[in-house]
Amino acid sequence: MIKITLPDGSVREYNEGVTAYEVAASISQGLAKAVLAAEVNGEVWDLTRPIKQDSSLKLLKFEDEGGKKTFWHSSAHLMAEAVEEAFPDAKFWVGPPVDNGYYYDIDLNGHKLTEEDLGKLEKRMTELAAQGNKYVRTEMPKAEAVKYFTEKGDEYKLDLLQNLNDGEITFYQQGHFTDLCRGPHIPSTDYIKAIKLLSIAGAYWKGDEKNKQLTRIYGVTFPKQALLDAHLAMLEEARKNDHRTLGRELEIFTFDEEVGPGLPLWLPKGAAIIEKLERLAKDSEHEQGYVRVKTPHLAKEALYIRSGHLPYYAESMFPPMEMDGQKYYLKAMNCPHHHKIFGALPKSYRDLPMRLAEYGTCYRYEQSGELFGLMRVRSMQMNDAHIYCTKAQFAEEFMKVNELYVKYFKIFGIDKYQMRFSTHDPAKLGQKYIDNAPLWLETETMVRDVLTKSGVPYVEVADEAAFYGPKIDIQLWSSIGKEFTIATNQVDFAQAERFDLTYMNEHNEKERPIIIHRAPLGTHERFIGFLLEHYAGKFPVWLAPEQVAILPISDKYMDYAKEVQQTLRKAGLEVTLDDRAEKIGKKIRDTEIKRTPYMLVVGEKEAEAKAVAVRRQGKGDLGTIPLTDFVMQIKEEVANYL
Amino acid sequence: MIKITLPDGSVREYNEGVTAYEVAASISQGLAKAVLAAEVNGEVWDLTRPIKQDSSLKLLKFEDEGGKKTFWHSSAHLMAEAVEEAFPDAKFWVGPPVDNGYYYDIDLNGHKLTEEDLGKLEKRMTELAAQGNKYVRTEMPKAEAVKYFTEKGDEYKLDLLQNLNDGEITFYQQGHFTDLCRGPHIPSTDYIKAIKLLSIAGAYWKGDEKNKQLTRIYGVTFPKQALLDAHLAMLEEARKNDHRTLGRELEIFTFDEEVGPGLPLWLPKGAAIIEKLERLAKDSEHEQGYVRVKTPHLAKEALYIRSGHLPYYAESMFPPMEMDGQKYYLKAMNCPHHHKIFGALPKSYRDLPMRLAEYGTCYRYEQSGELFGLMRVRSMQMNDAHIYCTKAQFAEEFMKVNELYVKYFKIFGIDKYQMRFSTHDPAKLGQKYIDNAPLWLETETMVRDVLTKSGVPYVEVADEAAFYGPKIDIQLWSSIGKEFTIATNQVDFAQAERFDLTYMNEHNEKERPIIIHRAPLGTHERFIGFLLEHYAGKFPVWLAPEQVAILPISDKYMDYAKEVQQTLRKAGLEVTLDDRAEKIGKKIRDTEIKRTPYMLVVGEKEAEAKAVAVRRQGKGDLGTIPLTDFVMQIKEEVANYL
Repeated sequence: MIKITLPDGSVREYNEGVTAYEVAASISQGLAKAVLAAEVNGEVWDLTRPIKQDSSLKLLKFEDEGGKKTFWHSSAHLMAEAVEEAFPDAKFWVGPPVDNGYYYDIDLNGHKLTEEDLGKLEKRMTELAAQGNKYVRTEMPKAEAVKYFTEKGDEYKLDLLQNLNDGEITFYQQGHFTDLCRGPHIPSTDYIKAIKLLSIAGAYWKGDEKNKQLTRIYGVTFPKQALLDAHLAMLEEARKNDHRTLGRELEIFTFDEEVGPGLPLWLPKGAAIIEKLERLAKDSEHEQGYVRVKTPHLAKEALYIRSGHLPYYAESMFPPMEMDGQKYYLKAMNCPHHHKIFGALPKSYRDLPMRLAEYGTCYRYEQSGELFGLMRVRSMQMNDAHIYCTKAQFAEEFMKVNELYVKYFKIFGIDKYQMRFSTHDPAKLGQKYIDNAPLWLETETMVRDVLTKSGVPYVEVADEAAFYGPKIDIQLWSSIGKEFTIATNQVDFAQAERFDLTYMNEHNEKERPIIIHRAPLGTHERFIGFLLEHYAGKFPVWLAPEQVAILPISDKYMDYAKEVQQTLRKAGLEVTLDDRAEKIGKKIRDTEIKRTPYMLVVGEKEAEAKAVAVRRQGKGDLGTIPLTDFVMQIKEEVANYL
Repeated sequence: MIKITLPDGSVREYNEGVTAYEVAASISQGLAKAVLAAEVNGEVWDLTRPIKQDSSLKLLKFEDEGGKKTFWHSSAHLMAEAVEEAFPDAKFWVGPPVDNGYYYDIDLNGHKLTEEDLGKLEKRMTELAAQGNKYVRTEMPKAEAVKYFTEKGDEYKLDLLQNLNDGEITFYQQGHFTDLCRGPHIPSTDYIKAIKLLSIAGAYWKGDEKNKQLTRIYGVTFPKQALLDAHLAMLEEARKNDHRTLGRELEIFTFDEEVGPGLPLWLPKGAAIIEKLERLAKDSEHEQGYVRVKTPHLAKEALYIRSGHLPYYAESMFPPMEMDGQKYYLKAMNCPHHHKIFGALPKSYRDLPMRLAEYGTCYRYEQSGELFGLMRVRSMQMNDAHIYCTKAQFAEEFMKVNELYVKYFKIFGIDKYQMRFSTHDPAKLGQKYIDNAPLWLETETMVRDVLTKSGVPYVEVADEAAFYGPKIDIQLWSSIGKEFTIATNQVDFAQAERFDLTYMNEHNEKERPIIIHRAPLGTHERFIGFLLEHYAGKFPVWLAPEQVAILPISDKYMDYAKEVQQTLRKAGLEVTLDDRAEKIGKKIRDTEIKRTPYMLVVGEKEAEAKAVAVRRQGKGDLGTIPLTDFVMQIKEEVANYL
């Protein structure tokens, strides 16, 4: 008998060689139907693979990342089967799961795939799926595998085999398709109920443009048709509300060839949003006892050697400038500068927690092919702060950071979010992780307690922590269900030592502070990109880059319109005046396209009465009210955005 | 007879060969006594030099820059006379006037000058001055001058002669001292009534450390003893209130060896001042219809070639970064980026004036020896904006900028300031200045009109404009009378063409906007440096980096003290809590050193009554009032800083 430990800590006994599927079935038949794969001692396995010793076990459904990845990987094999049937001389490179589906890179021996081909492949995949063929795993000695692919004339798989040794080589077969594959896979093809092949792209073999171009086919599959329908609807919404399109239409940002790729120029409307976000962050942080700092955008090489960014992170940094016989680098992170500020003056325990905040602009090198709108850029303004605290203060500080996240989610109407809590692997202490086992356990326990107590949804992922401490990534879903990773939150017990940061404790002894890195609003670039899509450009009044548009019925009322504009400006509002010689109907239509929350129509009646005719985006005419009333109403609306 | 045109436009006739002194005397004896030199056709001359043709003439007194410079230059010669008398083998390099006096670089043949020597030299200078020796100008052919200094064995003056030609070589003699000198000088030594030799320094010949080190003696002189007394008092105050000392004491900023020289790190108290200044600027600009933008801190070489910064300004820029086969440079100015934003979308006359504002951080290379506290730095955050307007809008826009300057002067209690209006020289159109005579005249007239109408003090300086338009430098004097040049204000009619910026005018034709560059609060670095000295660290409540300090009488009242702190924080105030286990007397004394405007003492009585005992910096105890009253009072004081 072996002992199987489940995530809730309960332990069950089974015969040696039990499979995860059998464990699931021993709990309930419903569960057995829903599980796709299993995490055995932290590694994802086939449901049908025998477990031969005491193990921890987590059953994975489609909702779990490991389950979803397994499902999509198996779908890639299913697609490959259909492709091989249609194009018998096709050769296959790799077919991994990705964020929203999977792809397979295939050498089609010169055949150009059409939309029609895609439709046919999709149809055939559906038929093959219904056959319920099992995914069968077999191990094979290297010599035999090499022989197999040499006979088949498959240079791609032979290339993959080069880096594998005996004992690591497994094949998976379903129906008539066999692939060299590490696995794991779902039990059989009939788990796949809904299939969509999305697009075809060219992809150089191994990403090197000197190599042959392969055909990449993207697809997505689901265990239920309803899930596919929802996903396709989301993709269509996302296409319409792509932040790059909205950013151009609403005049939020632009790029310029002479400035450089990945370096957004924020137009006035974009900068207006930035100002509001920064004011929100600064006010929230001030109230929570943060203090602000300002640091230069570069430093000598020495600083980054101290922090450890050089040489390990050099590829993600901008190249150096040579000045006065020294190398200077643009900062890729604000932390080293903040540590210098913490260390500039002696600190006592009474100074802690010290929370240093800065909306600092960082520069990171990304390959130009990787750049994508505001989502992947080379310059980024971070809602950054570093909290220096004692071990005793850690849990409270961490809780407050957590509360700040939740406060922001509420403000921005983000209903679906998840904290992804990455922990260390005790086996890798001293290699992948800083070698301080008690500190890891202690902080991870504190973080887990805070997450549990505060009731935020979270998943725990082993062996994905940062080198210097546990890490939390924040995943958000926009109103149309598109996923974004916006911010990370990290605990750090390494940098204080590298920078020799200390404080005097109550007993007049030097101690090292624990450091929390946090950036709840992420970078302006990514967060505004997210907000554009999340709101589909219809920003709430407090955040709208153009809060009020004044539309005079004719030029005769321009003086009064300007008076209204100045009154609203003095109230701190973003307000434009449509002074074109256009009919009022056209002015209203054009303003609607700009998604401006309020339109104020002014004509003779309004000018005489010092009033405004109010139109609300999406609600239409709200009637005529005195200007002073409108100012009071909108100021109140702006102030109470919660 | 020749015609002499005076600055007020009046024309007087004199015999050919009249001197400026005679012109002054013909106006009034009092004037003749006060003038030191004269500007003849834009060039500063000796008062006694004969004028041989029709000329414009401006008489220069000590108050005029040209007069002061001449006075100090003559004082350098007087000092040289005393030095030569005391050290007959001394050789003299150059002795120019500087901002606050003059110096002379002297080869003393190995003699080490002492403080005692300085005193003796000062005494001897006073005696020589009283002799009333005339400064006599003589021209000399180059051959004769070379012969003279060769015989004298003076390699320094021979070096100077190398770059001079016949007709350019003049000597000045007073008493027993003769110097190769372009002049001009004051009429005689008895104009110099008060003398102070300030300091001795080493200075490498020609600034090159491979050369011999000369002795540099700094001095200052005045036409009245009272002026010297006031100047020395100002220097003493300035020494005590040096922004570097105050910056350290009040924890405003720091430098770090590993970050780099000239790159200030703003500590929390400094960043608090920055936040307040930015909020003032942003609110003021928003009310005046500015819109904000945000641009990256670097761009490709191509952008700066277009703007003309490269190659001409390359020495003042940071060195390039090589990336993707391109050179990228940190921005030394925000203008090129702003022009790109203006040009990103088509503009019509209805979009103008467009006022693009950004507190942009710029990077400029300064020799490390030139760096000085916050006054000469390598990174600077500018209160920048560019106004794009039509010619018809120019005067009004320029007036509004001017009003903004005056508004700020009032807010910061700057009573003494001057606008230095630099115009072009028509003779240099097409060389030093962009070749558009009518536009120069038109804009200069508009600027002059605005300056005159608004009644701000200004001086006009010919031939000091920027290449692309007239320029205004703003000179301020701190409360102790130290001078600062804080900001410039420039009109630009060149960049719109370089960037091909246009707008559609009323007749649907493309036109180029005029651009105003303006930065009323200069850079944070220089302006906060100025404010530290101006306020001697005692910032007014609205601007103070620490507005309120809470001093609990003992630990027993810490909970209430924290409650007070949180209430004040929520009111948006910068507030600290002195939680040390010190006696209240010590807490008060320590807080006074920090120049915190308000101290709130809290003990049993205050905690029970929800009150605070208020102490005001410089005023002492103001009695006990309810906390809610204090919040209202201080919020009102902060809001009404004008």
